[in-house]
Amino acid sequence: MSHNTFGHLFRVTTWGESHGPALGCVIDGCPPRIPLHEADIQPWLDRRRPGQSKFTTQRAEPDQVRILSGTFEGLTTGTPIALMIENVDARSKDYGDIAQKFRPGHADLTYDLKYGIRDWRGGGRSSARETAARVAAGAVARKVLGPGVTIRGALVQMGPHGLDRGRWDWDEVARNPFFCPDPAAAAQWEEFLAGVRKQGSSCGAVIEVVAEGAPPGLGAPIYAKLDADLAAALMGINAVKGVEIGDGFAAASLSGEANADEMRMLNDGTIRFDSNHAGGVLGGISTGQPIVARFAVKPTSSILAPRHTVDRAGHDTEIATKGRHDPCVGIRAVPVGEAMMACVLADHLLRHRAQNPDAPATARLPRPGMALPARSE
Amino acid sequence: MSHNTFGHLFRVTTWGESHGPALGCVIDGCPPRIPLHEADIQPWLDRRRPGQSKFTTQRAEPDQVRILSGTFEGLTTGTPIALMIENVDARSKDYGDIAQKFRPGHADLTYDLKYGIRDWRGGGRSSARETAARVAAGAVARKVLGPGVTIRGALVQMGPHGLDRGRWDWDEVARNPFFCPDPAAAAQWEEFLAGVRKQGSSCGAVIEVVAEGAPPGLGAPIYAKLDADLAAALMGINAVKGVEIGDGFAAASLSGEANADEMRMLNDGTIRFDSNHAGGVLGGISTGQPIVARFAVKPTSSILAPRHTVDRAGHDTEIATKGRHDPCVGIRAVPVGEAMMACVLADHLLRHRAQNPDAPATARLPRPGMALPARSE
Amino acid sequence: MSHNTFGHLFRVTTWGESHGPALGCVIDGCPPRIPLHEADIQPWLDRRRPGQSKFTTQRAEPDQVRILSGTFEGLTTGTPIALMIENVDARSKDYGDIAQKFRPGHADLTYDLKYGIRDWRGGGRSSARETAARVAAGAVARKVLGPGVTIRGALVQMGPHGLDRGRWDWDEVARNPFFCPDPAAAAQWEEFLAGVRKQGSSCGAVIEVVAEGAPPGLGAPIYAKLDADLAAALMGINAVKGVEIGDGFAAASLSGEANADEMRMLNDGTIRFDSNHAGGVLGGISTGQPIVARFAVKPTSSILAPRHTVDRAGHDTEIATKGRHDPCVGIRAVPVGEAMMACVLADHLLRHRAQNPDAPATARLPRPGMALPARSE
Amino acid sequence: MSHNTFGHLFRVTTWGESHGPALGCVIDGCPPRIPLHEADIQPWLDRRRPGQSKFTTQRAEPDQVRILSGTFEGLTTGTPIALMIENVDARSKDYGDIAQKFRPGHADLTYDLKYGIRDWRGGGRSSARETAARVAAGAVARKVLGPGVTIRGALVQMGPHGLDRGRWDWDEVARNPFFCPDPAAAAQWEEFLAGVRKQGSSCGAVIEVVAEGAPPGLGAPIYAKLDADLAAALMGINAVKGVEIGDGFAAASLSGEANADEMRMLNDGTIRFDSNHAGGVLGGISTGQPIVARFAVKPTSSILAPRHTVDRAGHDTEIATKGRHDPCVGIRAVPVGEAMMACVLADHLLRHRAQNPDAPATARLPRPGMALPARSE
Repeated sequence: MSHNTFGHLFRVTTWGESHGPALGCVIDGCPPRIPLHEADIQPWLDRRRPGQSKFTTQRAEPDQVRILSGTFEGLTTGTPIALMIENVDARSKDYGDIAQKFRPGHADLTYDLKYGIRDWRGGGRSSARETAARVAAGAVARKVLGPGVTIRGALVQMGPHGLDRGRWDWDEVARNPFFCPDPAAAAQWEEFLAGVRKQGSSCGAVIEVVAEGAPPGLGAPIYAKLDADLAAALMGINAVKGVEIGDGFAAASLSGEANADEMRMLNDGTIRFDSNHAGGVLGGISTGQPIVARFAVKPTSSILAPRHTVDRAGHDTEIATKGRHDPCVGIRAVPVGEAMMACVLADHLLRHRAQNPDAPATARLPRPGMALPARSE
Repeated sequence: MSHNTFGHLFRVTTWGESHGPALGCVIDGCPPRIPLHEADIQPWLDRRRPGQSKFTTQRAEPDQVRILSGTFEGLTTGTPIALMIENVDARSKDYGDIAQKFRPGHADLTYDLKYGIRDWRGGGRSSARETAARVAAGAVARKVLGPGVTIRGALVQMGPHGLDRGRWDWDEVARNPFFCPDPAAAAQWEEFLAGVRKQGSSCGAVIEVVAEGAPPGLGAPIYAKLDADLAAALMGINAVKGVEIGDGFAAASLSGEANADEMRMLNDGTIRFDSNHAGGVLGGISTGQPIVARFAVKPTSSILAPRHTVDRAGHDTEIATKGRHDPCVGIRAVPVGEAMMACVLADHLLRHRAQNPDAPATARLPRPGMALPARSE
Repeated sequence: MSHNTFGHLFRVTTWGESHGPALGCVIDGCPPRIPLHEADIQPWLDRRRPGQSKFTTQRAEPDQVRILSGTFEGLTTGTPIALMIENVDARSKDYGDIAQKFRPGHADLTYDLKYGIRDWRGGGRSSARETAARVAAGAVARKVLGPGVTIRGALVQMGPHGLDRGRWDWDEVARNPFFCPDPAAAAQWEEFLAGVRKQGSSCGAVIEVVAEGAPPGLGAPIYAKLDADLAAALMGINAVKGVEIGDGFAAASLSGEANADEMRMLNDGTIRFDSNHAGGVLGGISTGQPIVARFAVKPTSSILAPRHTVDRAGHDTEIATKGRHDPCVGIRAVPVGEAMMACVLADHLLRHRAQNPDAPATARLPRPGMALPARSE
Repeated sequence: MSHNTFGHLFRVTTWGESHGPALGCVIDGCPPRIPLHEADIQPWLDRRRPGQSKFTTQRAEPDQVRILSGTFEGLTTGTPIALMIENVDARSKDYGDIAQKFRPGHADLTYDLKYGIRDWRGGGRSSARETAARVAAGAVARKVLGPGVTIRGALVQMGPHGLDRGRWDWDEVARNPFFCPDPAAAAQWEEFLAGVRKQGSSCGAVIEVVAEGAPPGLGAPIYAKLDADLAAALMGINAVKGVEIGDGFAAASLSGEANADEMRMLNDGTIRFDSNHAGGVLGGISTGQPIVARFAVKPTSSILAPRHTVDRAGHDTEIATKGRHDPCVGIRAVPVGEAMMACVLADHLLRHRAQNPDAPATARLPRPGMALPARSE
């Protein structure tokens, strides 16, 4: 990962500011002859789109994606895929106050310290609006992974409120505005968030993303371990402060015996784990089990309650952020987390295939004989 | 980060297996004319060295580092610095059992699935022994950062046992075998760990690393954010399952008001924050505050209690790991975490300087006038 | 350089096909607070634009560039600069014949062999139209280099016809349609090229690019030497088959004495070279002298004379390329070569500054005292 | 390519100075289960080794390579392969004079300007001794390419003297000390070079490297074209001033008709070219034909004739290089050029396989049906 590009073979470069004419991304390294139309990407963007419930910002962005290059007659060609989303509802006037003041918790100050200039309109480049480009890229990554890999995300904690994993139902995720898999928790959260919103306050969240069907062998030790790349990908989402794989921080409290994911042979010659404390990754390489990651999103920094801050002229002052904001930015981070997982897996699928073209797609051992690198025909 | 190299300008490539003839690293991009001798690196390696208390593996490795290139008359030259550490006490016979069986929680299975071969002696490349090379690189990174930047780590949780932050004393870290900053907790942990060891079990840990004195402006949005690069660097350490910046997962439970780090002007024209929930990073860029990261280490997977597993021939079996192992690998991860923090900061210091040579070294605003890129003379 | 991105700190990613809706680039890593408007880029594009004389393709493209991100109130912000050029005159019907046949000398066959698909409209991604994005990026690179660095290119050979270096006049380059610095040669070439065009044939060319005012110290040994990066940048331009630095291939015939660029001290404390056989690069690092590169462009492959080839169905056939083509593509490669030189130098300026912020801007020795890396302010 | 690393998937990092304790390289990304012993590498090093005839430096270096990591029981494991060559005959006293003076044509001055320090012993990092590490890496790259790919180099010009291509005999290359494929030319060169040596002068050379058997499809447009990567790899060899692919500069003088490599269908369904002006690369992608590259080496800069120069204290002076030097460094560049070709092809083979696992190994069309990316089992 480097500056505005991530990935090593499946590479995504994003660009654009919140209130500029457009934003987008260039996807490089995509395999050729994959069917790809705008209609394959749009539904994922629609899930992230603002203004879909009273709990997300009322900014009305259609987030219509255009494919500008890299496909021909409905198929990818192996050349860079440029995607563009025009900004439509960019009311810069809402943001006049923040041109001179630094909002606590925002990147306003650090961009100014680093660059000596910042596009203050809607947060400019540091706006979560940039994540639309990630979601678009994630839609392409899913196509690379193919239908055998399923990547799903859910909110598992809103503010201090968790959920009951015994009631987990993936279908429920689409039925409430919180991507919550537990209908009872969703009801509780709705009440909670309405209160937060009424007070002009905000709250944080924890999101879980699970990839099922990914082959074993993904990950490039030592410094591009699958879990390390996932950690960077998820920590790089706006407002994220923590990342876990599998049991995460809870693993520190387990005994070695409890934490061990024991293995058994299945009749079909594949290996089954009794548990998945590891979250599908051992030694930086996928095991073939579900890959489980969680990330924590801090409460939205834009709140109505005034906070002490300073201005560009060097004076103490206060700021209260009006404008249109999500009381819980964590909600819309769910499709973003899924997209980042998809991009990381697609990249590692290509990397793995380059070095180990004869690796098995399931946990099956041993590889018979010795395979010299052979060229296909 | 890519394969066995990390960093973009300050680049570290490591190599070597647990029981091969040697291990080492190549540090590329180091600025010239920095005084560097083996004696600058050795003390950091000695902190990580095994066999220093009854709570770490009894493998007796001197971990003597040699500089093979990149310095001349005691100064770095700007060319690659090759460091080598010979393996001395490599008793391969201890590991005979694991040649055919996959230890739960280890990389044995995944290396075999990915590569179709693995060096099973002591875990081969996946052994935590590789972290010696990281610590050596971290010693060089500290030189690049200069004496104004202090990077310190501490164990803040052993198994389920935390500590009292009110008793935090950095000097205490050197006085107990756990890198624990709270003497009372250290005493409690000693008892706890003795019990764990006696049972042939193991436990996890949480480590905190703090960098003080780093300038604001470090970090390269969007996909090389400082916190994202730290997350990858720390998640990539052996056995790590979670990473946090600042308040981390606890931030999800805070209100927006409580989470806001308010700002004030100091008389000297710099900006002071009232708190540091953000852990020194906003929008992926350092604020000039202490940079605070934590990571969770799972319990050592090598335990005496037998666990179900399979062998290479495809049979169910059991394995109990004898050999010499740390009951809590998290302890020796403390100097490794510091080293990774140092490497990430050194890399970003160079990257920041390349793009923003006129950026201030403290949180001071605004930059007067407009600075076209100028060349020094 | 990797796939569709080049540069390490000043990074350019291009996208787009000849007959798609648009093409463009994303420039990442540009320093902030550099004045940049579309009017700074357009004149360079206009120099490369087709249809300006009877010796270039009659395709009528306005090549109007739009800045979509990365600037604010007329200044760069340090975030990615997205540039887009819409394709206007894309007559796909001209290209119907090449959908099924492979034109000799073109990328038709190799794209099909590699990807199993190709956008045959105007050559798709392999069209020289992609170089418009390079020229746009080069205009930004020139801004990064500042007014002290001058980069100029000229055609020094058309077909078999060279020029007289004794008559070299940079001002002449703008006065003829060939970027030829020798008015007598320009007149001769005009006649020659008219004949080539009339015969439906084509010819090659050699271009020389010279950068003056670049500081010494640019280049990152061993595998990102300035001359190696220039070689890749120039060889990567469409139809280029050879690259030289300084005396190039002629150096092989010189004696060691004749090839040595002797040095003298000037009164101002800088070092002057008596000659520049090296082309401004020694050991992969710039000397402060003019940086001189040349590249050879093969004759345009699209010619009216029928050539033997095969079609996608596996039959022998013939092809004669009609459509609109430059009889000498080397002519329009001049601004492209300049742009590539500018991008490489801008990238290396940032890289050099990162590692060696105290390096001198002219050939001046020795650096007084020892400079530990210091942070500005 | 970046600093001291080159390659994207098959990545080689070299380190070491001419007169330090050792030099070496780390090869990352090599596929697993390839048989590899030191005996596979040593013969290639022996070809480059100095002191084998009176026409190369008399420095007596055994250039004995050691594999320090990355293999297990004689097979590569997929982890980094560290290779080390100890410096044995490092007589620093020969070089005392150049500590303070800058040799014309050498990197002495530019290293000092860039870094403010240099290891002057034998040229330090800029010594051609570094190429031993490249040759070692090239030996591994050949193993990755497999026995179907043959890479051979030859000297085709010494000083101003060419050879007769009609007498080209690859077997002859091993029979004379010049890697010359034409026995008559070799005899002439011997006499010429003896004279050059007697005069204390030096001469340049041109080397040709040919790879046969490489599959079509290698190369990653637009900015990692196969020819662009080859150009960088060859231009980055010490003393190289020019690189050509196929007809190179001579292509500029051809007509479009003459330059066209016409195609025919063979009975076995593959495509045959009538000629190979393109040198096996079209649009940056290999065609399946022999890949032909040439590079020009300038005359050895170390000569006995005194030349004007300056010293570190800023005074005009003269320098005559004694010590042990090759009168024609181009000779020993032949195995280096082969090695760089091998590394570039191995890297691109892996890259191509990642994106296009179903691409044909020979020039065969069309790919039947549409291939969604599939995972092997």
